[in-house]
Amino acid sequence: MDKFLININGELFNEEKAKISVFDRGFLYGDSVYEATRTFNRIPFRIQHHLDRLFFSAQKIELELTYSRKEILELILQTIKASPHNDIFLRIILTRGTNIDLGLDPELSSKNNLIIITKAITPNPDWWLTKGLSMIFHNKKSSERGPLPKTGKYLENILAYKDATEKGAFDSIMVNTAGHVTEGTTSNIWMIKDNIIYTPSLQDGVLDGLTRKTLIQMADRNNLMLQEISLTQEDFLGADECFITSTTRNLVPVTIIEGRPVGNGLPGKKTLELLKMYLEFVSLQ
Amino acid sequence: MDKFLININGELFNEEKAKISVFDRGFLYGDSVYEATRTFNRIPFRIQHHLDRLFFSAQKIELELTYSRKEILELILQTIKASPHNDIFLRIILTRGTNIDLGLDPELSSKNNLIIITKAITPNPDWWLTKGLSMIFHNKKSSERGPLPKTGKYLENILAYKDATEKGAFDSIMVNTAGHVTEGTTSNIWMIKDNIIYTPSLQDGVLDGLTRKTLIQMADRNNLMLQEISLTQEDFLGADECFITSTTRNLVPVTIIEGRPVGNGLPGKKTLELLKMYLEFVSLQ
Repeated sequence: MDKFLININGELFNEEKAKISVFDRGFLYGDSVYEATRTFNRIPFRIQHHLDRLFFSAQKIELELTYSRKEILELILQTIKASPHNDIFLRIILTRGTNIDLGLDPELSSKNNLIIITKAITPNPDWWLTKGLSMIFHNKKSSERGPLPKTGKYLENILAYKDATEKGAFDSIMVNTAGHVTEGTTSNIWMIKDNIIYTPSLQDGVLDGLTRKTLIQMADRNNLMLQEISLTQEDFLGADECFITSTTRNLVPVTIIEGRPVGNGLPGKKTLELLKMYLEFVSLQ
Repeated sequence: MDKFLININGELFNEEKAKISVFDRGFLYGDSVYEATRTFNRIPFRIQHHLDRLFFSAQKIELELTYSRKEILELILQTIKASPHNDIFLRIILTRGTNIDLGLDPELSSKNNLIIITKAITPNPDWWLTKGLSMIFHNKKSSERGPLPKTGKYLENILAYKDATEKGAFDSIMVNTAGHVTEGTTSNIWMIKDNIIYTPSLQDGVLDGLTRKTLIQMADRNNLMLQEISLTQEDFLGADECFITSTTRNLVPVTIIEGRPVGNGLPGKKTLELLKMYLEFVSLQ
């Protein structure tokens, strides 16, 4: 069974055949927005929230939509149905379209390109839960604020990820120009101190993650103490526990930051409780 | 005769057939660098300088090269030879390669993709010289400093261009977070005041344009007074003359900024002299 199945503007392709024009503005200029989600047993996770955010991102970069929300949803469902796998990761990419000429002018493309890449989900490695992850800090150069759109602009995160792996860490924790911690390169970040759960405020330039949002709801319904505030590197270095969240990976404990153990250096007890609670909460919905 | 001819990793394609994998990192993440140049009668303009800058950009984003400089040059020359046109624009795009899986990790691709898009050059419209261009200012959100690499990160320039055309202007003049003018969305920017030529310093976050560099050399050899310094919007609004430079468009006068005439509102006399001098200087080399 193929690991990948790709839908390009309604046509299905395998990995080798899935190609787009070099005049696509996503390729030429990073002029695209995207969403990433997964299925649980062929049901897409929080798909309406992902479509909300896709439209928010498109609006943020003034990307005029030539696909309706209904059409995009139908193409997603069509792709899930065609996949041989029950649990797949989906990357939904919407570009401003194929240029009829070179040039930045958005008017040079008349129709969006919609690409849905699906991939069979492989389970998280066991050691993520038994050992936890090691992270380093990465000081951002750009000073964007407020909830971020999900665009094709990825270079800073790629460099931050590369820097981490070269230093033997799992990933970087991004820090904005004001010195506030924001997120991982492809995850949201959390810490626990004195039984209170903390995560950086969206206003610090944080991606409004769907798993982040779900966890906040869950904490609210279960009367857990949770705060969205500005947090510094020192806050994280002094935390009792730390973890990341992402749609495909759920919650994963972080046990080392900048070479120093978080708490006792083992995956946090409360983190593992939250993971269990989260998996139940998600399957209940 | 086809307007476009595209070379992808050594194979030539027409516009319809020129496609790359949706797993190309340039498409997925904007993880690419590029150069833009032109030929004059089948001779590529300052190609060694462009290759220098391509390698500078690649190094800036830690893009490991799997093509040698010699191979890239040979592919460029092969494409120029195969083109039916004497005067072509070339966009040379080097991506980190095609991922074997989704994910930011650069190790997921083992081989760069090199795409050379060529396009027959159409001459500048006459009114550019007789009437000049109208521009507006665009305040940048990111705070990058120093000479910029040419990467796939284009969104801010696209929005600035879109904003300009929607307001009836030709293009935007970018202004950095320190309030200093930097460049156009696809050009360098210049002003003349009291017979001195000014252009923003590279340290303000300006692309090290090859036409910019050539003009500075020309001014030096002809003992023209020229300064590379930090310049404000007010400096430009109070200038006697203003113009932009780019490899395909040479020098083009700017006559209106933010709806107000520059000098007497006509293409500047010294600007037109510089253009004449530039065309002679370039053909002499």
